[in-house]
Amino acid sequence: MADKAEDPGLTTNTRAAAQPHGLITLTTDFGLQDPFVGVMKGVLLARLPAARIVDLTHGILPHWPAEAGFWLSKAAPYFPPGTVHIAVVDPGVGTSRRILMVEAHEQIFLAPDNGLLGPVLDKFTPNAVWELQTERQPTLFSLRISATFHGRDLFAPAAAALAGGQLRLAQLGVVTPDWVPGWIEEPVLDGNKISGVVVTIDHFGNLITNISGDLVRRMTDPHVPIAGKRLAVRRTYGDVAPGEDLALINSFDVLEIARSQGSAADSLGLERGAPVVVQDSVRFR
Amino acid sequence: MADKAEDPGLTTNTRAAAQPHGLITLTTDFGLQDPFVGVMKGVLLARLPAARIVDLTHGILPHWPAEAGFWLSKAAPYFPPGTVHIAVVDPGVGTSRRILMVEAHEQIFLAPDNGLLGPVLDKFTPNAVWELQTERQPTLFSLRISATFHGRDLFAPAAAALAGGQLRLAQLGVVTPDWVPGWIEEPVLDGNKISGVVVTIDHFGNLITNISGDLVRRMTDPHVPIAGKRLAVRRTYGDVAPGEDLALINSFDVLEIARSQGSAADSLGLERGAPVVVQDSVRFR
Amino acid sequence: MADKAEDPGLTTNTRAAAQPHGLITLTTDFGLQDPFVGVMKGVLLARLPAARIVDLTHGILPHWPAEAGFWLSKAAPYFPPGTVHIAVVDPGVGTSRRILMVEAHEQIFLAPDNGLLGPVLDKFTPNAVWELQTERQPTLFSLRISATFHGRDLFAPAAAALAGGQLRLAQLGVVTPDWVPGWIEEPVLDGNKISGVVVTIDHFGNLITNISGDLVRRMTDPHVPIAGKRLAVRRTYGDVAPGEDLALINSFDVLEIARSQGSAADSLGLERGAPVVVQDSVRFR
Repeated sequence: MADKAEDPGLTTNTRAAAQPHGLITLTTDFGLQDPFVGVMKGVLLARLPAARIVDLTHGILPHWPAEAGFWLSKAAPYFPPGTVHIAVVDPGVGTSRRILMVEAHEQIFLAPDNGLLGPVLDKFTPNAVWELQTERQPTLFSLRISATFHGRDLFAPAAAALAGGQLRLAQLGVVTPDWVPGWIEEPVLDGNKISGVVVTIDHFGNLITNISGDLVRRMTDPHVPIAGKRLAVRRTYGDVAPGEDLALINSFDVLEIARSQGSAADSLGLERGAPVVVQDSVRFR
Repeated sequence: MADKAEDPGLTTNTRAAAQPHGLITLTTDFGLQDPFVGVMKGVLLARLPAARIVDLTHGILPHWPAEAGFWLSKAAPYFPPGTVHIAVVDPGVGTSRRILMVEAHEQIFLAPDNGLLGPVLDKFTPNAVWELQTERQPTLFSLRISATFHGRDLFAPAAAALAGGQLRLAQLGVVTPDWVPGWIEEPVLDGNKISGVVVTIDHFGNLITNISGDLVRRMTDPHVPIAGKRLAVRRTYGDVAPGEDLALINSFDVLEIARSQGSAADSLGLERGAPVVVQDSVRFR
Repeated sequence: MADKAEDPGLTTNTRAAAQPHGLITLTTDFGLQDPFVGVMKGVLLARLPAARIVDLTHGILPHWPAEAGFWLSKAAPYFPPGTVHIAVVDPGVGTSRRILMVEAHEQIFLAPDNGLLGPVLDKFTPNAVWELQTERQPTLFSLRISATFHGRDLFAPAAAALAGGQLRLAQLGVVTPDWVPGWIEEPVLDGNKISGVVVTIDHFGNLITNISGDLVRRMTDPHVPIAGKRLAVRRTYGDVAPGEDLALINSFDVLEIARSQGSAADSLGLERGAPVVVQDSVRFR
């Protein structure tokens, strides 16, 4: 399986089981200023009092599903089999876009079919991809399904039923052979060069790219030309003096541009989507 | 009951029971930068280890109780009977203002008596409104009650005792016949016009008003004149092109002014408290 | 014990026990924009499904351990014996800095050895200070320990094992006689003057200092000269008119400079680290 290399070893023994056990994660662009997330938790707990709910992040850039899928694919290996993940970054809410339910890595991922789950489907070999069909469980959902808050009215009831073992995927939808592809292409090693993009910027201003450590480790002398500098790939922030920029393979095994004890985003002036290139000074090997 | 129309159908079967079961929600203007909310949770869990705590929001505009009461009244129907809600937006903390305990909708609401609970009392028919009397349970509260953090020293101990079933309301206070009224008057339909205000602005910049969908649905051709435009009432964000403004009845059944995949607050330059009018172009019907 | 005076009385009966019971708090400078905190919770729950996790704060000023230790020392008394606290503000992650495990106040505190725990060690008499030795429990930790995310790879597995009672401190490390001292010296009463600093600024813009109420109460007529004003020490915010500045001893028993219904940080233009002096106008007593 594609995810073996990065499996943190948490799930080895129970890999076959994947019985649901009430653990549900939430990933949205709702922020925490309003009670939208809290209301979703109310619905989950009203239906599954034993639910244990973890906020993965609600700070996804509004209306950018790519970032949600990236983080979900990186975070999922740290959760046990049987976990149900809800991801709602959904500018098309209430239109005819479908809702997907992906069974992969012995977990379940629920999200709108807008490319959000691309990185999850790329990284893990899915057992099956399902399309939610609300009409199959008419009593499960609210009497009134709103046009603008499917997180509360569709995702939460479906997740509660799945995480509590009341329903199986086959009772909630049908297998679908196609889905909207992810937003960002996976980088490849092309000669002595890897081209990727900044997918997300973390709280510290670290620029996190979609360039995997596996690719970079295939180079002999990788470095990142950026803003007139040539950054070598270091091991950790403390390897350079405070205020100095560096590149490193971060804890999620992707290339990151950072400033020691500072913000690379501020100092380099880069945004999500900015191109990043890694070059190998040894051309032939 | 006034809340029947919007009841999402979660609570139908258990409507009569309302036994407490350890579910507690928190609504404050404390933000999440400091450990104030975490310390309240420490007190709750020290006294009720089985407490399940949901953050409704801690992003209420500092010192504006109206927003807290609005959201609480909209969110409560999604929580099961027996839930205990704590709301602390409390510029008068430590002065002689009272603490109210409202029994309504088979739930309990604790808040300072400063008008915060106005929307809850308007929406749900309260069984009773109680005034907290700390002297009735001298061992329940901290040895030292601070003058500035009643969330920790009064609200959390009272809520833990109520949510765990250790105490009933009658053991914590006395019924009171009066309270400080809400901050904002409920809009009414006046001829062909409804006048309301922006109560809150969500994370996406959507302007959320206190004008109920029920009122708007009584109009034949409702539209919202705003910033030189005339917005029709749509069903969802995807009904207009990205970047275009729209009005809709949102998932909490109130009128909202939005910009598709953008921020209406930024584009229209409106703040909380701004007046909003809905007009019906059909005068007589 | 040094903390007796401020013990809020929650823990009296169970003071001797301190059996772990799955309650874990988190204090970091990670923010909530990214899934770092959520991933730590995944690791905790994968290893200890019954864990109850409380976010103390993730809003510590990046790379400033002093603020984390201050809040941890103030918040810990509100948590029950047996609680395990994780604090990660860790600019030296992945370098040779050690990880400390402090047993104090019948609780356990895990943090990098960078001075963060200074206020905890000053306030509570520690039973013992341990240094984590990962090599003693090789199967406990991830197959790959990253250089940049010890919160996930070291702190969370250790805390889960301690909070679940699977391991004792002696199985995870060795007692150490020394550690990096705290960042800020404890203020003292020097003649008619106490000199301290602003340690943190809360969500409301209140300037919170490290000057204890005990020191101030030893003065006859304490006042705070600041920005050309002379602020008397009041009891609560409502004791002055809205918009007026005041000093008070806050709910964590330290001196705070505030503006009633406003932001003292904005109005006075002060930052973390700014000096604050309390003067007693009665020189001899």
